[in-house]
Amino acid sequence: MGSVSTQVTLAKERDNATFDPNLMDLFINGEAWVNTRNKILDVVRKQPEIFDMSDIYFLNREGEVEKLLKQEKRVAELIQQKKLTDDDAMAITYIQDASGPYRLHRGMFMPTLERQATDEQKKAFLEKARNYEIIGCYAQTEMGHGSNVRGLETTATYIQETDEFEVDSPTLTSTKWWIGGLGVAATHACVMAQLIIKNKNYGVYPIVVPIRSTVDHKPLPGVSVGDHGPKMGFNGVDNGFVNFDKVRVPRFNLLQRYITVDNQGNVTIPSDVDPRVTYSTMVYVRSNIVNIMGKELSKAVTIAVRYTSVRRQFGDDPNKSENPVLDYPIVQYRLIPLVAKTYMMLGMSHEFYANYERCRMAIEKNNDFSLLKEMHAVSCGLKKWCSDTTVYGIDTCRHVCGGHGFSLFSGLNTAFANLYPNIIWEGDNFVLAQQTARYILKVAENSMNSSPIESDDPTSQIFKKFKYDLPKRKISNNKLWNSEITPQTVVSNEQLLLNILAYKVAHQAYTLATKINVDKQSWNDSLVADYMTRALSEPLNREKMGDELREQIFKRYIEPVTKYAKL
Amino acid sequence: MGSVSTQVTLAKERDNATFDPNLMDLFINGEAWVNTRNKILDVVRKQPEIFDMSDIYFLNREGEVEKLLKQEKRVAELIQQKKLTDDDAMAITYIQDASGPYRLHRGMFMPTLERQATDEQKKAFLEKARNYEIIGCYAQTEMGHGSNVRGLETTATYIQETDEFEVDSPTLTSTKWWIGGLGVAATHACVMAQLIIKNKNYGVYPIVVPIRSTVDHKPLPGVSVGDHGPKMGFNGVDNGFVNFDKVRVPRFNLLQRYITVDNQGNVTIPSDVDPRVTYSTMVYVRSNIVNIMGKELSKAVTIAVRYTSVRRQFGDDPNKSENPVLDYPIVQYRLIPLVAKTYMMLGMSHEFYANYERCRMAIEKNNDFSLLKEMHAVSCGLKKWCSDTTVYGIDTCRHVCGGHGFSLFSGLNTAFANLYPNIIWEGDNFVLAQQTARYILKVAENSMNSSPIESDDPTSQIFKKFKYDLPKRKISNNKLWNSEITPQTVVSNEQLLLNILAYKVAHQAYTLATKINVDKQSWNDSLVADYMTRALSEPLNREKMGDELREQIFKRYIEPVTKYAKL
Repeated sequence: MGSVSTQVTLAKERDNATFDPNLMDLFINGEAWVNTRNKILDVVRKQPEIFDMSDIYFLNREGEVEKLLKQEKRVAELIQQKKLTDDDAMAITYIQDASGPYRLHRGMFMPTLERQATDEQKKAFLEKARNYEIIGCYAQTEMGHGSNVRGLETTATYIQETDEFEVDSPTLTSTKWWIGGLGVAATHACVMAQLIIKNKNYGVYPIVVPIRSTVDHKPLPGVSVGDHGPKMGFNGVDNGFVNFDKVRVPRFNLLQRYITVDNQGNVTIPSDVDPRVTYSTMVYVRSNIVNIMGKELSKAVTIAVRYTSVRRQFGDDPNKSENPVLDYPIVQYRLIPLVAKTYMMLGMSHEFYANYERCRMAIEKNNDFSLLKEMHAVSCGLKKWCSDTTVYGIDTCRHVCGGHGFSLFSGLNTAFANLYPNIIWEGDNFVLAQQTARYILKVAENSMNSSPIESDDPTSQIFKKFKYDLPKRKISNNKLWNSEITPQTVVSNEQLLLNILAYKVAHQAYTLATKINVDKQSWNDSLVADYMTRALSEPLNREKMGDELREQIFKRYIEPVTKYAKL
Repeated sequence: MGSVSTQVTLAKERDNATFDPNLMDLFINGEAWVNTRNKILDVVRKQPEIFDMSDIYFLNREGEVEKLLKQEKRVAELIQQKKLTDDDAMAITYIQDASGPYRLHRGMFMPTLERQATDEQKKAFLEKARNYEIIGCYAQTEMGHGSNVRGLETTATYIQETDEFEVDSPTLTSTKWWIGGLGVAATHACVMAQLIIKNKNYGVYPIVVPIRSTVDHKPLPGVSVGDHGPKMGFNGVDNGFVNFDKVRVPRFNLLQRYITVDNQGNVTIPSDVDPRVTYSTMVYVRSNIVNIMGKELSKAVTIAVRYTSVRRQFGDDPNKSENPVLDYPIVQYRLIPLVAKTYMMLGMSHEFYANYERCRMAIEKNNDFSLLKEMHAVSCGLKKWCSDTTVYGIDTCRHVCGGHGFSLFSGLNTAFANLYPNIIWEGDNFVLAQQTARYILKVAENSMNSSPIESDDPTSQIFKKFKYDLPKRKISNNKLWNSEITPQTVVSNEQLLLNILAYKVAHQAYTLATKINVDKQSWNDSLVADYMTRALSEPLNREKMGDELREQIFKRYIEPVTKYAKL
């Protein structure tokens, strides 16, 4: 039985490429990222005694935290020496495939100070944080309270006599929980607490609480703090808990950009702060997730495509080498759509960043919030779809690698485990699906009720184009099909394909809206979300589309794709 | 804000049960298992210094193997003292949620000797294995060869001069790979090798090869053996590799129940051995997986249902405690069908064992293999469906537990990781789906072509009952709906529901067969498998069913169920 070496096989596969991979890298990742990546690779390679990861799979939880803490220390030194930026530090996380104990210091603590601290407070906290003199964490989630932020139990009560706030955890369930960086590293926590002044509850605000001594790193009086122990993944980050027993901090520590409290307990909330601005932050965080998901899935499909090119199994001719498993439809069917989706996610993230910028400028310049609602709904849907696709896409990559995918050395298991929280954090995917589905349904219902659609966002445009004729129970507009359909027109006419997809969205949303409003079927939010998620993931329904022209489109362009990709 | 203690909440939920859980335990698990479980729990509880698992999540891979080896040692002693049976030892694995280094010694090495060794060989190897004087493993898979057993490269060549076999790994890819128990524990391997005698290749046969000294446990000359390193899960088992450099063993070591070789190199293969018997073994192994999957999913849903009963989030009245998340449709929708499926899997496994027994008796008593083909197809489908349902069901349980599910302490992460190989081993699930789909399609095609269906197995009975009228392109028989449809008749008439489901199978299979054979669409095995898997998992299609009676059935009995369960 013949055998073919890995090098020969891979070289042959690579020769099949119709493009220059370096140009593609520049095109999809952009020059800035390519430069950052090269800079970081150089740092990492030059200091293997610190950044080498070859023993990572052999370590237990403690060993992993210790290893990454050592790396964080070096990164902090390089930042202090101005040899690295904060963005570079985040890029190291990506290159090393491992988040360390300072991740949330950079990712949450400093950005919160940036946004919510006054200039004086920035001087006191942010400058020290930037210089790694203090290490912070962002303490919002409690043992008993995740999605329901208003239900947080931790209190910060103003004590006028001493001009202090008393931070307290009144119950076990009010213990701050899952806080990244808190288990081992943090000296300070930005604590989200119910702000109580003169017996009045002002809602949840952030307050900076020192938790460990900057001298000997011991917990400060009244602070019970510790590490969460081993997790499914993300084990280099020291998620931890903290419980406060009436801990006093100066009034100064309440972040006062959006609320001010004077030494008489008088509260001022600036009138020019629109609470909808916080939505805009959530939208931004989710758009980041979309980009990261695209990048991470690209790692996994690279591993899986390389492996399935090299791995051979079965063949017709015993005198020849067996067939690469990538040549079997059972593998292509699962893997090739994932390759396409990585490109799609990266493209979508660029597009979405641009839309976000447009939306942000409209808010900042003209106080125009009209784009925000749709932006929010789209960010929920994108975050859900991209994180599901990446996490379970990595699972598919692992599965096509068979037994070899089960070894930690495949890299796919830690990737799956480390990225898994993306389907939970920043809004659980099931909750987010409801938000998006409810939004689409509402626009569809407005359109059906012939109430004018005032907004001009892309979703509204779809439903304006494809209005619903309620008496006839069908979409009235049919302009979609006016252009002549040949392979050439479709390939060169992106708008036509977009129209087909838009038609599909409108069709599915109207169908659901009809079931609920006209046929009076009983649906709850979960079923609505599930219906929309399934409906939009299924191939276009030929029977519903009707005339011969549509049939042609379907046969020529949709079916061949959906057979593999289930668009 | 009020708060409700865990004890109070759980007691209240338990009071809602309409049955005695102990009786249910007996009913679904059977008295034998309940007794074994109690016996094992007693052993485990009495020796916490050995069997306590509370530190398991803190250990790295080496620590985990060492811990479980200590437990295996104690189990072996208890077996030697006749205080435990081999079955008890397997039950410990279940109770402890952890497989150890001797798992494959008991699960594969001894059963192979049992089936394929002569009485003399049993005396030499099996007795010592039972007494733990030797520890064995089953070495079939190679680095380059998994599903394609005929492609194994390891050779066992008869050397007449010394009356020995020379076992050799001619290439890197021929290295035995993923062999449980081989990394650390095994002294002997049952090696599957190409049997070569006088330059003739007789195919793959098992041969016992000593690999480590029973004196100092060092690898024997010519044997390169080691551990696989860390894996996604199953880390208490020492999967390992071994490479043979022309290792000689006596002719006696070739297991000679199904082939005999004398000292002149004459080969005899008994004429009464039907190769189809090996199918029967595969069917049995898969039926075991179905049972295990039901038991393991029941652990996960217990954790998730308890947690979501206790976990509260959001509520309408700020003076009352928040609502248990189990009360939300978004959670019920995902969790309750899984609870139902655990019962279903356990029930199915009992039913399938009984069918297997019937099939086995027919073979043994009357040499009647007529039931085996369908049995094989059903076992493939069941194994695929049950392992997918359990592995991804555990994932759903983890997801509904939110952040808390991500902690190893939830138990759900190790369960997911340890059970994951069930979708790969004993036939990869994607390959098995093809086998089942192809079988159903073939029976449907036979029925359409009006060739008589000779077999009388349950699948054939479905297609006999619902014959296809090719010119009319519909199922001709309509007797399904003859009985009067009221809630009472359906609840008391199990046959009616079975008929509905059977109708669905027939309908979907005929639809697919028509696409392929009549409409000449191009389908490959992967697409066929995917179509059947999706089609059978989707709710019954109301539109396709037609008349008013069917509509009634659908509205009353199918829709309410499928809304939640997606039958």
